[in-house]
Amino acid sequence: MKFTLSQEVMAELLGTMVLILFGCGVVAMVVLFGSNPAIPGEVVKGGYTNITLGWGFAVLMGIFIAGTISGAHLNPAVTIALAATGRFPWAKVGPYIAGQMIGAFLGAAIVFAVYHAKWVEVDPQLANTAGIFSTFPAVPGFWPGFIDQVVGTALLVGLILAIGDKLNNPAGAAWGSLAVAFVVMAIGMSFGGMHGYAINPARDLGPRLFSAIAGFQNTGFSNGVWLVPVLGPIVGGVLGALIYDTFIGKPLLRAGEAHTGIQGVDPEYNVKR
Amino acid sequence: MKFTLSQEVMAELLGTMVLILFGCGVVAMVVLFGSNPAIPGEVVKGGYTNITLGWGFAVLMGIFIAGTISGAHLNPAVTIALAATGRFPWAKVGPYIAGQMIGAFLGAAIVFAVYHAKWVEVDPQLANTAGIFSTFPAVPGFWPGFIDQVVGTALLVGLILAIGDKLNNPAGAAWGSLAVAFVVMAIGMSFGGMHGYAINPARDLGPRLFSAIAGFQNTGFSNGVWLVPVLGPIVGGVLGALIYDTFIGKPLLRAGEAHTGIQGVDPEYNVKR
Amino acid sequence: MKFTLSQEVMAELLGTMVLILFGCGVVAMVVLFGSNPAIPGEVVKGGYTNITLGWGFAVLMGIFIAGTISGAHLNPAVTIALAATGRFPWAKVGPYIAGQMIGAFLGAAIVFAVYHAKWVEVDPQLANTAGIFSTFPAVPGFWPGFIDQVVGTALLVGLILAIGDKLNNPAGAAWGSLAVAFVVMAIGMSFGGMHGYAINPARDLGPRLFSAIAGFQNTGFSNGVWLVPVLGPIVGGVLGALIYDTFIGKPLLRAGEAHTGIQGVDPEYNVKR
Amino acid sequence: MKFTLSQEVMAELLGTMVLILFGCGVVAMVVLFGSNPAIPGEVVKGGYTNITLGWGFAVLMGIFIAGTISGAHLNPAVTIALAATGRFPWAKVGPYIAGQMIGAFLGAAIVFAVYHAKWVEVDPQLANTAGIFSTFPAVPGFWPGFIDQVVGTALLVGLILAIGDKLNNPAGAAWGSLAVAFVVMAIGMSFGGMHGYAINPARDLGPRLFSAIAGFQNTGFSNGVWLVPVLGPIVGGVLGALIYDTFIGKPLLRAGEAHTGIQGVDPEYNVKR
Repeated sequence: MKFTLSQEVMAELLGTMVLILFGCGVVAMVVLFGSNPAIPGEVVKGGYTNITLGWGFAVLMGIFIAGTISGAHLNPAVTIALAATGRFPWAKVGPYIAGQMIGAFLGAAIVFAVYHAKWVEVDPQLANTAGIFSTFPAVPGFWPGFIDQVVGTALLVGLILAIGDKLNNPAGAAWGSLAVAFVVMAIGMSFGGMHGYAINPARDLGPRLFSAIAGFQNTGFSNGVWLVPVLGPIVGGVLGALIYDTFIGKPLLRAGEAHTGIQGVDPEYNVKR
Repeated sequence: MKFTLSQEVMAELLGTMVLILFGCGVVAMVVLFGSNPAIPGEVVKGGYTNITLGWGFAVLMGIFIAGTISGAHLNPAVTIALAATGRFPWAKVGPYIAGQMIGAFLGAAIVFAVYHAKWVEVDPQLANTAGIFSTFPAVPGFWPGFIDQVVGTALLVGLILAIGDKLNNPAGAAWGSLAVAFVVMAIGMSFGGMHGYAINPARDLGPRLFSAIAGFQNTGFSNGVWLVPVLGPIVGGVLGALIYDTFIGKPLLRAGEAHTGIQGVDPEYNVKR
Repeated sequence: MKFTLSQEVMAELLGTMVLILFGCGVVAMVVLFGSNPAIPGEVVKGGYTNITLGWGFAVLMGIFIAGTISGAHLNPAVTIALAATGRFPWAKVGPYIAGQMIGAFLGAAIVFAVYHAKWVEVDPQLANTAGIFSTFPAVPGFWPGFIDQVVGTALLVGLILAIGDKLNNPAGAAWGSLAVAFVVMAIGMSFGGMHGYAINPARDLGPRLFSAIAGFQNTGFSNGVWLVPVLGPIVGGVLGALIYDTFIGKPLLRAGEAHTGIQGVDPEYNVKR
Repeated sequence: MKFTLSQEVMAELLGTMVLILFGCGVVAMVVLFGSNPAIPGEVVKGGYTNITLGWGFAVLMGIFIAGTISGAHLNPAVTIALAATGRFPWAKVGPYIAGQMIGAFLGAAIVFAVYHAKWVEVDPQLANTAGIFSTFPAVPGFWPGFIDQVVGTALLVGLILAIGDKLNNPAGAAWGSLAVAFVVMAIGMSFGGMHGYAINPARDLGPRLFSAIAGFQNTGFSNGVWLVPVLGPIVGGVLGALIYDTFIGKPLLRAGEAHTGIQGVDPEYNVKR
């Protein structure tokens, strides 16, 4: 089936909005309900396990919305890595990223609206809770966070390619969206400490822009923090795609061509690469 | 296969009863076993993670029971949204909702019977535990809870339509029931704080009626709390269905018609809309 | 494919042994590592969430082992309910239950061997940890636990029938074993408090016999506790099967027969009932 | 499709590297962020539930990478057990184990690089955190850990064979990789206490070698601890494979041959054994 570019961009926008609704929503739950020491005795509404499960489900929900129409990139690092490896036209990269950024901004705004009454109880000055919207480093300095974002996003994109590659995973296509959600849960559990596993420039910058406009303090714009989860994921995404192609994707393609005798392995596996 | 309306309503009743058995059951576990400060040292039998997983599984179990015969709405907000978008006959809406309400009431009664011996230990006056049956606001006032219920139920219904739409998710049909359970887990993790993610008028009002009849205090009937999780989900469900249809469902249908050349895309995808 | 009765019983034995290895194993983890107040500062190795996930996975592993050869009942309440509703020959009920009991006993013995060095540190008199092997009531008296076991096992067996019924769930057959694991996780989360969700006479009595022979104190034999998770599951299993058949199974069968025009719905759905 | 040995070894290397990235990563998260009593008030980034989920996902990610090209053993105990039961050529055992060891070493090095800035804050002497890389006994002595590793790895390999056996689990092939991840989660939940469920000599020895070279203290080389998770898994893996073949695999093969009338059951089930 064919879709117009504006339908695709709209799907990216809506899918990324849903991603941020669930993703920033679960952080709001953990931060606003019970982890705040200012309100002793409050019933805790989740912890780090919920955050990691919640962001994984957030990606799954975004894929349910946008998967068929736009391919559900939901992430400029994915879009750029796909373009850099010839899987996606460069001409669409700009519009896709625009849709992702607007969707992320809107998602953050709706999360703020839903939790507003509670938010002003817990942090009336909006001084300490910008971390519900965007990520911050555990250790000062550019490089610790940057290395973390490169490794995390390389894993994200490499594994997305592994899951989506029909030569690698033909049987798993039926639950590929769930497999991607598991990748995000796993990255959160294993690489969420150094810089909050942004691994997605739109997921981080869109809500951060909203937090600045909405009047939050300490949003990370004044000290350059905002750059780390923009640059790191772009570098990491391309790196992960190149590593996957070199060691897994190309051997599979060569073996598939030898097996079928057809360049591009089209008829049997419906692969164009 | 064809079923009579009474078979369908009976399936909705039984499925909603199973939903409430597991759903109110997991809240009973968390509230009655160990979170009660009156019994120090009690072994905790779960926390918020279990509540969110438990309600997701509860929906899955309800779908296992009622999915084939009645479609497993289990929720008036789903039934009304399906009718409002032409997917379900208005004539069946009343009987379906009646079945859901009766099933939810019976499920609450069985949960009370199972946990009765423990319940009277923890809360002998039945003064503080009506929250095991129905939802209450985190912040006073109508609007915070109402906005929360509208957003949560819009996500619920929009995602149910995305999962069930054969043009959107043909491969995923095999695990569609699990996908819906993940939606409910995700809403609990990300939108469970402001009003206990009722997102279902029968799930909330049925057990609340039981709690009032069974002699519980502070059931939410005297202060109007009961209205929020009835009105909010109905509005949100219709809203979510309209957003899905506008931005995802209709583009898919148009593309499917162009692809197959057939209005309604029937033969290839078996879709009637 | 056809198997001999001794192959089937051996598969039940091995599958139930694996069930108890994982099931009693996860309780040993939670009880012996860190929940014991006698060893402050000990790193906690799980809590109630792990217990509920662990028992669910335990059932999944048992099904992986025994599913094809014996059908993986792993539970006398399931075997008896299947026989009582004409799905399983009464002649095999005795041998199956014998295999389940022996497997459960052996599984308990291996768990004791694995954890022995730690066990004697935590509870050198074997006075307080018989609960790792078998279930105990939260509230004194026969009826609270019995009602709990009846409801829990009715849900277990009713849902197993719903999942396994080809007329109800044809698409889900590919992940039916996982669905059953989710049922057990859900019962643990929602109905694990009153009597430890034994819902399986072999799972409870086999390890309890081992604990008595191994010299544990307070094993529940002297005060009649052992009877509750034997009688309750048998009654509940038959009840759940009858409710399923009455309200879901028989309507499906009638509709299937009307749809195919064939008594028993054999050719299209491969159902014999 | 056919692959060269060097492609296969490279896939094992990359897959095991990914396994260790996620596996040691989740332990780093739990140990470095908030469980360290030296930093009170630190936000906890996971606990034992996350460790068990994280290692399961780690295996899943390794299978996504290496499954098609090398079969994703990722574990010398699996490779040796497959060879010992005639499922894998002995000639490839050495190269596979070399790839697994190198991949595990590299994965540990990258985890150290990602978390370095935090690590030197929490444990500047590298004296107490070698446990992020490799496993240590809960109770002194060789035998408690050895028995634990034998039982754990017997379960791992026996269940991997059960899941991969086309005669046992034909429908489940579509989610076999997820089923293996669940096995690892279950072993962690039920058998993770006595020796950290290494159940894989490369997973344990590769990172342990890195920790010694990187200057960590108490790495387990001086006191012989390193031997337990090398010998135990090899013995346990072969034992588990033999038990599976004796009680499940061979009965299935005999029944399959009787059903199809063909030695080896090749045409219908594509099984060679």
